[in-house]
Amino acid sequence: MSRYHLEVRVKPRPGLLDPQGKAIHGALRSLGWPEVDDVRVGKAIYLYVDASSEKDAIEKATAMCRKLLANPVTEDFEVALAGRLQGARA
Amino acid sequence: MSRYHLEVRVKPRPGLLDPQGKAIHGALRSLGWPEVDDVRVGKAIYLYVDASSEKDAIEKATAMCRKLLANPVTEDFEVALAGRLQGARA
Repeated sequence: MSRYHLEVRVKPRPGLLDPQGKAIHGALRSLGWPEVDDVRVGKAIYLYVDASSEKDAIEKATAMCRKLLANPVTEDFEVALAGRLQGARA
Repeated sequence: MSRYHLEVRVKPRPGLLDPQGKAIHGALRSLGWPEVDDVRVGKAIYLYVDASSEKDAIEKATAMCRKLLANPVTEDFEVALAGRLQGARA
């Protein structure tokens, strides 16, 4: 078993309202960045998981997204490997 | 001017308490994933910015992080290019 560091990004689906993104967009414009066209805010979730392989770790994280981390109606998610921490767990 | 799609990840600094991560960690364990060692939750912010070059877009986003998007005391941030949307803005 190795310990894998995974990064999950959960993003509001296109077309759905994102009030937090709208608020940040307005704040950036009033701070002097009119060149910002749009802002969407999602979550970045960092998981440290024990798994037998990269594939296994990614499959586990995908199952976690389906069951808990993302709302399938309003959010999309991506799972990526952020780096394998060798020897972190014997 | 092209329109750039940037992705900013804001993450709580190592060692700082992350109650949202702790709650997700507990939920994942009770849902049957004891192999999860740690969970940290940050923000993923997607920006669509008009800029003259990739370098310019990344510099702008970095300035936005310093001024608004990240708390320099408690959070680290990363800026990455998520893809250039060609012709999106003439």
